[in-house]
Amino acid sequence: MKINNNNEIAAAVVTMEGAKDVRMKILIGPDDGSENIIMRHFTIAPGGHTPFHQHNYEHVVKVEANRGIAVDDHGNETEIARGQSLYVSPDAMHQFRNPFNEDFEFLCIIPNPASRV
Amino acid sequence: MKINNNNEIAAAVVTMEGAKDVRMKILIGPDDGSENIIMRHFTIAPGGHTPFHQHNYEHVVKVEANRGIAVDDHGNETEIARGQSLYVSPDAMHQFRNPFNEDFEFLCIIPNPASRV
Repeated sequence: MKINNNNEIAAAVVTMEGAKDVRMKILIGPDDGSENIIMRHFTIAPGGHTPFHQHNYEHVVKVEANRGIAVDDHGNETEIARGQSLYVSPDAMHQFRNPFNEDFEFLCIIPNPASRV
Repeated sequence: MKINNNNEIAAAVVTMEGAKDVRMKILIGPDDGSENIIMRHFTIAPGGHTPFHQHNYEHVVKVEANRGIAVDDHGNETEIARGQSLYVSPDAMHQFRNPFNEDFEFLCIIPNPASRV
């Protein structure tokens, strides 16, 4: 059993093209022995966003703090807030944006790329 | 993209042998289209516990509210609280207990049994 203190994990700036003011930390991942599931914590600062993009794996999301905007594959925007969870299918276009005044924080859980076929 | 309101999801009483005063709700799972990952929310009432048991899949855990006790495969007990995340390996004995006065809440994320080989 591995126990991590979330606040001792360094946050990395997300440098992916199309990302703005996004930080990510891996709460549980391969370094902890997790071969199939990676639990990541994202913070999008006010005015920031992830890329509007797609990939061949899914997202399981839970809002952790405050609120933001989820953009779906049709470009439709939905405000989401703490108390909500989301599922984004593999290959579906999506984006998370923060047009509000406080950090938008969420978990984004993915299958470990190394264990995907 | 599927968006769920966590508080609208019904909690089921966990009836597994060895469980006491444990409720579980699936925040994101197969009914939402998630084929590989199931995100579950557990609440253990004061005095309650999960079974001390093992299974062939892992747990990725994040404490959501208050505190509890995690028991590892050696029977060692560690107090865990909000702000901490855990990884439990496949086949490792483990238990979660709540000897405190407030509900102990945590996420427990697992691979979907239907997608496991």
